[in-house]
Amino acid sequence: MMLCGVIPILATPFNDDESLDLVSWQRLIRFMLDAGADGLTILGVLGEANRLTDAERDSLISSAVTTVEGRVPLVVGVSHAGTFAAGVLAARAEELGASAVMLAPHKEPVANDERIVELYKRVARATSLPIVLQDHPASTEVQMSAALIARIVDSVPSIQAIKAEAVPTAPKIRALREQCKTHVAILAGLGALYAPFDLAEGIDGFNTGFAFPEVLKAMVSAAHSGNFARVHALYARFAALIVFEQQPGLAVRKEILRRRGMIASARVRHPGAALPAGSALHLDRLLAAAFGGQDLSHKLEV
Amino acid sequence: MMLCGVIPILATPFNDDESLDLVSWQRLIRFMLDAGADGLTILGVLGEANRLTDAERDSLISSAVTTVEGRVPLVVGVSHAGTFAAGVLAARAEELGASAVMLAPHKEPVANDERIVELYKRVARATSLPIVLQDHPASTEVQMSAALIARIVDSVPSIQAIKAEAVPTAPKIRALREQCKTHVAILAGLGALYAPFDLAEGIDGFNTGFAFPEVLKAMVSAAHSGNFARVHALYARFAALIVFEQQPGLAVRKEILRRRGMIASARVRHPGAALPAGSALHLDRLLAAAFGGQDLSHKLEV
Amino acid sequence: MMLCGVIPILATPFNDDESLDLVSWQRLIRFMLDAGADGLTILGVLGEANRLTDAERDSLISSAVTTVEGRVPLVVGVSHAGTFAAGVLAARAEELGASAVMLAPHKEPVANDERIVELYKRVARATSLPIVLQDHPASTEVQMSAALIARIVDSVPSIQAIKAEAVPTAPKIRALREQCKTHVAILAGLGALYAPFDLAEGIDGFNTGFAFPEVLKAMVSAAHSGNFARVHALYARFAALIVFEQQPGLAVRKEILRRRGMIASARVRHPGAALPAGSALHLDRLLAAAFGGQDLSHKLEV
Amino acid sequence: MMLCGVIPILATPFNDDESLDLVSWQRLIRFMLDAGADGLTILGVLGEANRLTDAERDSLISSAVTTVEGRVPLVVGVSHAGTFAAGVLAARAEELGASAVMLAPHKEPVANDERIVELYKRVARATSLPIVLQDHPASTEVQMSAALIARIVDSVPSIQAIKAEAVPTAPKIRALREQCKTHVAILAGLGALYAPFDLAEGIDGFNTGFAFPEVLKAMVSAAHSGNFARVHALYARFAALIVFEQQPGLAVRKEILRRRGMIASARVRHPGAALPAGSALHLDRLLAAAFGGQDLSHKLEV
Repeated sequence: MMLCGVIPILATPFNDDESLDLVSWQRLIRFMLDAGADGLTILGVLGEANRLTDAERDSLISSAVTTVEGRVPLVVGVSHAGTFAAGVLAARAEELGASAVMLAPHKEPVANDERIVELYKRVARATSLPIVLQDHPASTEVQMSAALIARIVDSVPSIQAIKAEAVPTAPKIRALREQCKTHVAILAGLGALYAPFDLAEGIDGFNTGFAFPEVLKAMVSAAHSGNFARVHALYARFAALIVFEQQPGLAVRKEILRRRGMIASARVRHPGAALPAGSALHLDRLLAAAFGGQDLSHKLEV
Repeated sequence: MMLCGVIPILATPFNDDESLDLVSWQRLIRFMLDAGADGLTILGVLGEANRLTDAERDSLISSAVTTVEGRVPLVVGVSHAGTFAAGVLAARAEELGASAVMLAPHKEPVANDERIVELYKRVARATSLPIVLQDHPASTEVQMSAALIARIVDSVPSIQAIKAEAVPTAPKIRALREQCKTHVAILAGLGALYAPFDLAEGIDGFNTGFAFPEVLKAMVSAAHSGNFARVHALYARFAALIVFEQQPGLAVRKEILRRRGMIASARVRHPGAALPAGSALHLDRLLAAAFGGQDLSHKLEV
Repeated sequence: MMLCGVIPILATPFNDDESLDLVSWQRLIRFMLDAGADGLTILGVLGEANRLTDAERDSLISSAVTTVEGRVPLVVGVSHAGTFAAGVLAARAEELGASAVMLAPHKEPVANDERIVELYKRVARATSLPIVLQDHPASTEVQMSAALIARIVDSVPSIQAIKAEAVPTAPKIRALREQCKTHVAILAGLGALYAPFDLAEGIDGFNTGFAFPEVLKAMVSAAHSGNFARVHALYARFAALIVFEQQPGLAVRKEILRRRGMIASARVRHPGAALPAGSALHLDRLLAAAFGGQDLSHKLEV
Repeated sequence: MMLCGVIPILATPFNDDESLDLVSWQRLIRFMLDAGADGLTILGVLGEANRLTDAERDSLISSAVTTVEGRVPLVVGVSHAGTFAAGVLAARAEELGASAVMLAPHKEPVANDERIVELYKRVARATSLPIVLQDHPASTEVQMSAALIARIVDSVPSIQAIKAEAVPTAPKIRALREQCKTHVAILAGLGALYAPFDLAEGIDGFNTGFAFPEVLKAMVSAAHSGNFARVHALYARFAALIVFEQQPGLAVRKEILRRRGMIASARVRHPGAALPAGSALHLDRLLAAAFGGQDLSHKLEV
């Protein structure tokens, strides 16, 4: 299994009463597959994993497994405040048919690198699935140096990818490449905000929630063929949209998914903020400027 | 139902492999009842609730309900990053036989008082149980002013108690008394560190994990009969123990419970810290000084 | 005096031994004036104000006053952990010839809106200069609601501008416009990352450290003439540069200033991070792509 | 010079208009010397150093040097957001006659142990004075492992003492003793809250703001003669006072100093909180209980 290319992070669709909308869930998954996704990651930050019950997690995983039908790797977020529970979630994801798990450390009152190493070792013992190590201090409030991540990667063979989301990203990616003795995929996140720099550093793909995987596919393809002029041209064309979408708050992202026909409601679970006043109008203009007359509800040409 | 007096917060006992130890759980509960607890709170911070799976929560609640047999109120912590899930946990606690739920707000990227009010309103709609509002910024990183808490209490009738753990506690308790129009119980926490001041402010009891409810009972009793000289004498006698126990890290607390014979292992779930080097020796001296030759595994005379 | 248009935030130039470089300081100021700056702000976050002694502040202010010669407003940052000292700094800035002061609140252990109102009232009493209220939670860790800012603005007449840097910026700017009864200028910051959205919300200008005021001037001019197609075209052209520059760490910004010939060294004072590995190469490409063969050491045509 | 025994941290006295009260300053210093202080530390957290201008620092240092007349070591806090400025403050303290400086690291967006080592090395080059390394995460938000502190101590010979204020303190002190190859004094802080445990770990003294150095002297003396029963008896007698005083907010501490006649006003500089409602009454009772009929304005017998 290769964790590379464009692996969208999926939002979890809710009905307007905040209950799970599994119909939208399946439509969202099929849409992403049709748009060329090389894998799918569910139950991450954008998936509001921290606002779900364990039973809801099971429903979402099972439904995703059924819908994906093994066509691409299905990565399941299993980050948890407790290591034991993270192991339980990982084992459960494996039992339900996931292809890999994604795991970030939990902030503790006193930072302790040794315990972060142990976290990955323990979860690796709880599941035979490959692990994606997520380095996203903006959500975890945990800072892992490149040296620490390299040490984890080199001592936990089942880690096959790093989701590199610590800013500034380019020097961190460079340091990870230099310091990891084991080869692992390095995937960019953060809504592709730093796409041209991350691609120039030789990332293996994107693992992020930007709602237009077609755009990311085109960038990866251009970068892999050495055509960085095209990477920059694509970035220039979509930068305003990328910047708008990566703002704090998930409602903007879910609203774009809704407009693309992937999900029925942009509802974010409380206490997450609803779409801010004025955002719909900004989006109207951005989408018109970026895609002209194209029908957003189909795979886009970029 | 009255939420007052001494309501211990229970630790969750684990075996050395970090699995649940339900035998110790029942022993712990019975011990606390025998020691005179006026209620019990489970699945709070000391209960490592954030390191449990939902299935483990169910086991612990059911086992506690069975063991308590309705003799005292059983309060179940239901704090969750998501409001919807907190409501589900509250409904589930009710279904399993709990007497009340305890709820603290979750830190959001942008603080928003309105959403905290909504949190309590929504959970109150999800369960018919009374609610204990927990104000513990040290664990939640959420600051609620006395005015905000009063507003919540006055607009959510099912809130029957406030667990007042924002330092400095005495002026906060005073402000809550002045600003809440509705009468609610105010309970002190924080390991009873501020016991003499909190009692002088007229609290209705303790809701904390200090492993010697006998001591807290004696203090409450002295305070209620106006004997503050005895409150101070009790505090002086046990202050070193109280101070030692309330230090960050749960292992010290669990070690005391173990020494009292309530639980079989002081194990804290990873990534929680184990008992620090030297702490066992400090405890030996403290317990000897505080209780002399008494057998800690029985209800103590204070 | 009008605080609008493009008001660059100036970096403080240091020699390689971290001592003040007042020669570069004057060159930097003259360059910005020649490039069309409508005002200048010194001693802000980019100015590493928190790493300066009071004597160094005096030197920088005096030198700036002399160099600006009153051609445009000179705004001096006076944020301080203590209100009394902020007042002293404001009075001193006035004495030395500044045109206005910029002030952000200081994070306290317990957040308290009332004290933030008092801060602005007290500093307004300490100086007769106009005040720019800075709302930048990323550096202050203080969150001010639009309602609080409106209350401050409406009760402190000397506040003449808001530097609106709380994300997401567009809805905050909209809310400020709606809730402030007094008219004040609203200026965008954050390296112009959200320029098209901020301009669409009707900001009065930019108050930020982006090293190409020519670009910001062109955007403001386009927006004021209603030509948002040009705003978007400009943003697309410079977005990669804007995104690169606004990354955490001031060294990238100072390196661009150095390349433009404004300052002699990109040195950031310890413990600030030096230019990360690889960043020089990214910059080479970005500047070549954005400005082609133009000489960066002169005012650029955009 | 020995940095051991009881070295009070001094509050900075202000008049009711928040201006410096140098008369009280000298009275405070003389009082502490008369009470048996083995040294004095000024311009720390309790000294509200972060709310002072550089000119005020100079006044306070000069006045203290004059008043102390070399009888005991005078330690001056020089922590600053910038390393260069910390060096300037240290050199200035030396020039004005200080005996040593106290230095804590500054929180940076990305934690970096190497830069903390450099901080101490650089300040050690800026002054020939001995350095007290302060480890107080509660105010700095910087966590230094025992291994990091040992590395700093072993590579910066002028560090002669560690102010050990990271909780839990006892295991940290133990680890520092084990890991530092160089002998340095270890001093307890945190208002002496953990006095019996810190003393049992063999600390060399107290470096804290507790307003009764007589009590700390008695504890140190008892511990040094191996009389831990007396240590515990003293702690029991004064625990409620110690606990009350170490609560967040400096006003309580300054109020006690005022009652002892050391300073004229308990004023804390804005935005620091004033004495909370009810605190005066709690203090009345605590002081009466702890010291009976003794005149607090003289050296107390304990």
